[in-house]
Amino acid sequence: MTNSEIKHISSLKNKKARCEAGEFVVESEKLVVEAIESGYEVKLVCYTGQNVDPKIVSYPCAEAVDQKTMDRISLLSSPSPALAVVRMPAAGTEPDIAALASDPGVLCLALDGVRDPGNLGTIIRIADWFGIDAVLASQDTVELYNPKTIQSTMGSIFRKKVIYCDLVEAAAMFAERGAAVYGTFLEGENIYSQQLDRHAMIVMGSESFGIRDYLAGSVTKKLFIPPWPAGGSGCESLNVSAAAAVVCSEFRRFY
Amino acid sequence: MTNSEIKHISSLKNKKARCEAGEFVVESEKLVVEAIESGYEVKLVCYTGQNVDPKIVSYPCAEAVDQKTMDRISLLSSPSPALAVVRMPAAGTEPDIAALASDPGVLCLALDGVRDPGNLGTIIRIADWFGIDAVLASQDTVELYNPKTIQSTMGSIFRKKVIYCDLVEAAAMFAERGAAVYGTFLEGENIYSQQLDRHAMIVMGSESFGIRDYLAGSVTKKLFIPPWPAGGSGCESLNVSAAAAVVCSEFRRFY
Repeated sequence: MTNSEIKHISSLKNKKARCEAGEFVVESEKLVVEAIESGYEVKLVCYTGQNVDPKIVSYPCAEAVDQKTMDRISLLSSPSPALAVVRMPAAGTEPDIAALASDPGVLCLALDGVRDPGNLGTIIRIADWFGIDAVLASQDTVELYNPKTIQSTMGSIFRKKVIYCDLVEAAAMFAERGAAVYGTFLEGENIYSQQLDRHAMIVMGSESFGIRDYLAGSVTKKLFIPPWPAGGSGCESLNVSAAAAVVCSEFRRFY
Repeated sequence: MTNSEIKHISSLKNKKARCEAGEFVVESEKLVVEAIESGYEVKLVCYTGQNVDPKIVSYPCAEAVDQKTMDRISLLSSPSPALAVVRMPAAGTEPDIAALASDPGVLCLALDGVRDPGNLGTIIRIADWFGIDAVLASQDTVELYNPKTIQSTMGSIFRKKVIYCDLVEAAAMFAERGAAVYGTFLEGENIYSQQLDRHAMIVMGSESFGIRDYLAGSVTKKLFIPPWPAGGSGCESLNVSAAAAVVCSEFRRFY
């Protein structure tokens, strides 16, 4: 590996460099194997040691590197034995959202300004587990290719479409096509007693602001995960990824 | 604030120093107010600026400090305007667990080796939201007073009892008193179709190993959160805090 390659990979720690290159880094054997098998364009794979997954070693552009090199290119405090540089796929567009909204079998999550990369990654993994068709995200949601987001998806990033878009427009597209637009609010109705529509977009608010006013009016059905016992203990809310897990479970548990 | 006080507070970044002092640090106005109102012994409060919550400013031992001092004592990359040093309460003991196990109204979570401080904190917050009576944790679970754990509880640390203990012994105490011992396993039964017993201990496994063999035999009822559609998409599991949210929701949704 040349010095300029090492510099290039290291530069992908920064969002600006990632956007300019259109590339992102995944680390750990599991994620590198998922990248290879995903259909994403894998630009470069490197690994250390002898005991790495054969799918990695036999990959056409795979390169064995020494530990010192891996330490230089890795973003992890304890580098794993494998790293890949992957090409970002084309961003989702309005026609993609229209196609989702038109399909009566489609259930989407929409994230209004989620800030924490770990939460975004965990929500993508939840969406994958529960067969949510796509994740829509407001333009100010944390970047999908943030290394912490990628690591916390545990590979779901390669299976789940995430589309950054104007959520007011997306909600309108769903509503026009007869889908429900759900959202979680402290003043919403008990989710456990609702008949939930499977053709829907479900909005989750950010860690600090919940669903913001600009978007709240687009929600047609307000939901609430009630605390136990009724009235609660003083705990003001669930973490957004915990709430997303409960909501997705509720939408899927009867089918 | 004296230099030796500043050094002492800074030292609480380290687990060893926290354990020796029996003290931990909480940051952010919200958490400092929760500490003050919690009944925990608050040793020291400091704040910067004029616009801090009056409950903080009027606290007997509260001290205004300049930004430079706050930057030195804070563990956050962007220090918040308030910080408190709090005395650790006495650790839970075997009689506490026996009392929990004996009460037919008690539902506990038990964590087998959860490693990520954010996951532990999020789970404590989930337990608080859903009225879980206590969180039991294996001795190798990440430390409760890790700053990342505390911050991610969002104050639930002051309301929810967390007891580090031998989970095999705890499970035996629950089983002997007629409680169910649940656990989540990939080969468990569909949680959505179970009649769930409310007098129970529910074991959640760690991020990497799930529920380990030494403890699996103590579980009397194995549960599974099914992916959707049946068979799943290739996603191997849910994050432990997402799974805890779904499980707690299921235990509480019918009551």
